[in-house]
Order: sequence, then C-alpha cells, then structure tokens
Amino acid sequence: MEDTYGNLIASLAKKNDQRIVLLVMDGVGDCDNDGKGTALQQAKTPNLDRLAETSALGLSMPVDVGITPGSGPGHLGLFGYDPLIYKVGRGVLSALGIEFKITDRDVAARLNFCTIDADGNVTDRRAGRIGDDENKRVLEKIRAGLKPPAGVEVLFETVAEHRALMVIRGDDLDDDIGETDPQATGVPPLRADRPPHTGKTAVIVAEIIDQVRAILEGEKKANMILARGFAKFPSWPTFAERFQLNPAAVAGYPMYRGVARLVGMPVVSQPTTAADICTETVKALADHTFVFSHFKYTDKTGEDGDLAGKIQRIEEMDAALPALLDAKPDVLLITGDHSTPPSLKAHSWHPVPVLMAAPHLRGGDGAPFDEVHCRSGQIGTIFAKQLIPLAMAHAEKLEKFGA
Amino acid sequence: MEDTYGNLIASLAKKNDQRIVLLVMDGVGDCDNDGKGTALQQAKTPNLDRLAETSALGLSMPVDVGITPGSGPGHLGLFGYDPLIYKVGRGVLSALGIEFKITDRDVAARLNFCTIDADGNVTDRRAGRIGDDENKRVLEKIRAGLKPPAGVEVLFETVAEHRALMVIRGDDLDDDIGETDPQATGVPPLRADRPPHTGKTAVIVAEIIDQVRAILEGEKKANMILARGFAKFPSWPTFAERFQLNPAAVAGYPMYRGVARLVGMPVVSQPTTAADICTETVKALADHTFVFSHFKYTDKTGEDGDLAGKIQRIEEMDAALPALLDAKPDVLLITGDHSTPPSLKAHSWHPVPVLMAAPHLRGGDGAPFDEVHCRSGQIGTIFAKQLIPLAMAHAEKLEKFGA
Repeated sequence: MEDTYGNLIASLAKKNDQRIVLLVMDGVGDCDNDGKGTALQQAKTPNLDRLAETSALGLSMPVDVGITPGSGPGHLGLFGYDPLIYKVGRGVLSALGIEFKITDRDVAARLNFCTIDADGNVTDRRAGRIGDDENKRVLEKIRAGLKPPAGVEVLFETVAEHRALMVIRGDDLDDDIGETDPQATGVPPLRADRPPHTGKTAVIVAEIIDQVRAILEGEKKANMILARGFAKFPSWPTFAERFQLNPAAVAGYPMYRGVARLVGMPVVSQPTTAADICTETVKALADHTFVFSHFKYTDKTGEDGDLAGKIQRIEEMDAALPALLDAKPDVLLITGDHSTPPSLKAHSWHPVPVLMAAPHLRGGDGAPFDEVHCRSGQIGTIFAKQLIPLAMAHAEKLEKFGA
Repeated sequence: MEDTYGNLIASLAKKNDQRIVLLVMDGVGDCDNDGKGTALQQAKTPNLDRLAETSALGLSMPVDVGITPGSGPGHLGLFGYDPLIYKVGRGVLSALGIEFKITDRDVAARLNFCTIDADGNVTDRRAGRIGDDENKRVLEKIRAGLKPPAGVEVLFETVAEHRALMVIRGDDLDDDIGETDPQATGVPPLRADRPPHTGKTAVIVAEIIDQVRAILEGEKKANMILARGFAKFPSWPTFAERFQLNPAAVAGYPMYRGVARLVGMPVVSQPTTAADICTETVKALADHTFVFSHFKYTDKTGEDGDLAGKIQRIEEMDAALPALLDAKPDVLLITGDHSTPPSLKAHSWHPVPVLMAAPHLRGGDGAPFDEVHCRSGQIGTIFAKQLIPLAMAHAEKLEKFGA
C-alpha cells in the first residue's frame, strides 16, 4: 500500500521557528457511563473548556471505523505514520515495552513459556501462568545453558508472568521465520524453519529452540517456549526527515518512549505526573520545534475500570495545563491515541476528542472539550495521521501543492 | 484494488454470542418533497423516533459521493463487501433477480431480444418492447430448435418484456466473451468470439447465437438476440468466514435472496410485510448471530413516485418494530441500501439514514430518525461497508489491532 498522503506531506514540509505541541492524554476518549456522560463530560475542566472555546475541535479516528488500536498503532497514527502501512511486529513492540535497546542487527520475538508432555505435545500454552520470579529463574537457566549458534548473540528478557522477549543479534538476519505457537493444545509446537521459512535466520532460530527444549527438560511447568511475532526494527523515514521538525519526546513510560524511538524521536525527559509533564514540555520547547508529551494515567484508569480515577486524572491535567499555555506554543494539539472506556476496561474503537489551539482558525468552536461537542467542531472527524499535517498547516510549515 | 479494510476486519473478527440485526428498509432515503420534507420526515414514526433518541445516528454512503447504486452493489456494501471491489456481472444479477439457481459451472448473460433487417443490421435494440407472453413464446421456440454445442447445456429464462437470461452450463467455462450489443441501430450485432475474445467459451456462445438467429428467422419483431454482462458466479469469501458470524437472511423478494446467496447467507424465511418481517427476524435470532431482514416496499413506492405510499410503508414498519425490539438484539442497525426519492422515481446517490441501537454508545443522539437529524449523529457519514464492522465493534466481535 502506497503512503500517498504521507509522501505528499513529506514533499511539502518546510522548516520555520513555530512550535507544535502534541499532548497525548492516553486513552482519554470514553463512551457514556449509565446516562451520566463520558469521563471528559463529567470531569471539571475549566482550563480545557476555556481553551476549547477559542480552539478548533474535532474527532480523531486512530485507524478506521470500528478498529480498536493497540498502543503502537495508536501512537504511530498520531505521529503521522499510517498504522496500516507502518506496521510494527509484536516482537519489536515487546522490546519497546520493556525498553530493551533493540538495534538494526536484531530480530525480536515474543515468547510464551508453555508446558509440553512426554510426547512433545503442548498441554498448556501459558505454562500455568507462572509468576515473574519463576520466569526469571527459568530464563537464567536458559542463558546459562545455551550455546549460541555461530555468528549470533541470543538475548532473553522477562516481560511478565509467562511472557518473555527473545532477541537474535547478528549480521544479515531476516524475520522470515515461522511462528512456533500452534495456537492449540494436544499438538506439538511448530518448527521455526518449516517451509516456506527455510532461510538462514529461521534455521538459527530452530536450532536455538531445540537447545531450549533440552535445557528445560525436567521443568514441571515451563518446559518449552513458543515464539511469535518475529520482527526486525523497522527502517522508516524518521519523524525529523518526514516533517522537517526537530522533535522531542516527554514520556515517562517505556512503551511510549519506545514508539517515539521507532520514528527517531529523542526522549528528553521522563515525567509521569500531569504537572511535571507540562513543565518538562515547556523546557523542551526551548530548543525543539515539536514536542510529543505523554500522559499515561487516563488510559490506566480506563483499563482498570476506574471511572472516578479517570475523571480525577483528567482534572489533574486540566489543573496543570496553565503552565504549558503560558509558554504559548504556536499550535497545541490535545488528544488521545485511542479511547479507553472504563465500562469496557480496554482500548476501544471510538474516535478520540481533539482540541487544536492554533492561529488561522475559523473562530473558536465555542464549546467545552468533550466527545459530544468535538463531533461538531471545525476539524470534523479525521484520521489520526492527519493531525500533525493539520497542525503543520496552521504553523505555516507546509508549502503549497502545485502552482 | 486491494480490500485493505475488509481484510483487516476479517483478520480481527471473533465469535461471541451477541446478536446483530441489519434491518434494510430498501430505498428508505429521500430528498425534500416540495418543501414538506422527506418521506421519513413526513411519516409518523413514534417507535423509530423513540428508539433514535437513545441510539446512534448517521448517514451511510452506499458507494461514494454522487454514485447511485443498483440493488446488487447497494446490498453488497451493507453486507460489508466494498462494491467497487466485489463486482458482480449483470448476467449473474439477472439470474439472481429471477431466482435462477446459478451454479459455479455456469456463465450467465443478460439477453435483449432485438429486431434486425434483411441485411442483418439492428433496427430496434428492444424488439418493439415485446410483452412477457411473446418473450416466453419466442424463448420456447429457441429451446425447441437449439442443438447445444458439445459439452454444454444452454438454459433460457424470461425476465420481462424484451429481457431474458441465458446460461451456458459446462466444465471449465470462462466469461471472457464479447458483448454482442452494438449499442446502436443500423449496424449488425457484434460477434461474441471477436478478438481478443477467442477462447473456448466465446466460440461456444457465438455458435449458440448463430443458431438462435437461424431459429428466429421469419419472426417479425424478436428475430435476434443481443447478449451482454457475461459473468460467472463469483467465488468470494462467505459472510460467515469473513465476519465469523452465523448469518440468516429474512427476505421475501428474489433479488435480495439472491444477493444474500452471493455471500453464502442462507435464506431462512421469505416474508414481505413489515409485521411478518419483524416476527420472522425474531425467530431467526434464536439460532443465528446475524440476521439480515429486507423490507421491499419503501423502495417500490419510491420507484412508483408514490410519496404517500412510501410514507405509509415507513409507518407500517414503525408499527411493526416493537415486536423486534422486544427480542432485544444486542445491536440493531436500521438503514437502506440506497435512497429512492419518489420525486426521482428511481434509486439515487443520497446518503442513507442509519440508526444503530447498541451498547457502548456516547449516549443517545436525542433526535428523530430522518435524513437531516442523522447528519449530525455520532456515527457521522461513513461508507455502507463500514456498518457491519461498526456493529461488530459494539458487539465486541473485533480483536484489537496491534499491541
């Protein structure tokens, strides 16, 4: 699929000194809660609402109608990379999520410990959901016993419970490797080097897994591994190249520092509270024309089904906002990477409220910042990947198309 | 053209027990009638309006801006098959329209009887619009006289007036056959086997048409046939495969049973009145996770230019609706496959009102169900092919995209 829109924007991007801030309130969107409205509707947000009065409002579609994005696709969209074109494998996302420093010589895979019986058939695809400590103990045993195949390093890291990360590091590796999880019990794991996956790297991975099986023999629960989502660190145009912006990320959680790194965006600060995020963003504006600032707790409370907590976190960001507004960024985008309704305790497909404070608007939309008022705002409902280009337009960072 | 969205939805679809109903009021959309509003605006629809208050509203674009769909593309869109990708030939649609049981060994074509002169030039492309009885008489003469080429059966069915269906049945047939209608008078019909259409099936069809010409020699009006829209029954992913739903169609008219069959949707009942459609839909919900229910008369009255009739048919469906609502489907979509304004006496390009009663909404849209209020509803204006994915999202039948 060709990146028509992204390439067009890249061809028109130009530098100037105007500053753009993208403040992501992770998972901020919601649906109604028992007739009492969304978290944004229920929260007392005088600063956001005052800003919304004079701003452009709209809704951001992370991927497409009905599609619920994970954090990777959700942020890539906001960064202006179409998540249906710029796909990132689970192995790489696992590495980003634990802040493993993945390099371009690496192939990463997500591992599950599993249990196999005497015949080699999988009896439990999650090894009885062993705890983190058991995971670490078994990984240490693998590290001690494994003889890396010639020319590669093999690295393992605990993720959580039965989940781990495996990274093969070496020259000229590829990610054409068979997933070994049979997605069923009563059958043996698949081989990584089964046809059509018969290249050098697949053979290396199959050999590693054979060794791991021998090393884990005798373990009661975690006596085998299943590997999937083999992926190389993608070589995409960096955010700086693509948009002619000098970007900085202000993000306290590993996954979001990781997705920033995917597009070559340096992380300049790692705050987690709303107040710290706003003050660190102001600092970053001193020498960056673009700052991505990430606030995690609106998503976390949504995932926990904690409506009151989500409302409180929104109010915290509202209270912190004046410090950022005082710095007068030329364009300020406030939105989320997806919705996380507490009633679903999960990410959702609902389009996400967007507020853009910027010059050259068609007046302010004169409404508070919430899902319902954003629907009729001047931005309309657009794709997340279109937000940075829109902000760039308002910051006069896009040349005219054609003469 | 790659079916990016459809393939993505198919890759995320998962089964659960929630029930989705798609109630199609064929051609329900309208434009204004002499300043008095659309049929939906003029109809008294207390049940629809009460439901709309607590539902999501929007508009469905059948194909794209300005495009008027036929019944085939209109329904394929609603079934989640992009009508610009999943194209169905006129021959197959003709077969579906008269409920001819087309098989995957068939090539179907739409026939027009025409009149040719002594030199073999077409003088009337519609044979003076002969009536159905004359059509049947002449077809019987062809059936009696034709000697099928080796290895094939040749089947004919009257459609109406000068229109008929021809089906060639045999092994390894293809539909690379030249259309024989010259689209003009004063010139001879084209040959089905003219280059580049020189394959086995084209040669067979040309031979059949030569025989028909000889058989019809001496007829005054219908002394030749013109064939177009040669098409095989398409082999598409079935609705059940694509969406992991267990579908049923409740449809009283042949064309709609036919398009259901195109996507492998079994027809479980054939009611035609609003009341019967609602009660049969409830029955079908007992053992299906998806029910498509089709109400024809809102389109028929539109095609007849009968505004009062269209209003009355809408009111009939409104009155019947409580029986369906009592069954509490998890998600209920009410819309049309296109608009059929009585003032146009034809299908039109206007986007079609949609109502979705579902969990996880952003509140109800608090407005009556009509073209104007639907415009500002929370669904927005989306493509028809996105409605089933959206309903699936609300029924929690779609996995998250990416991690």
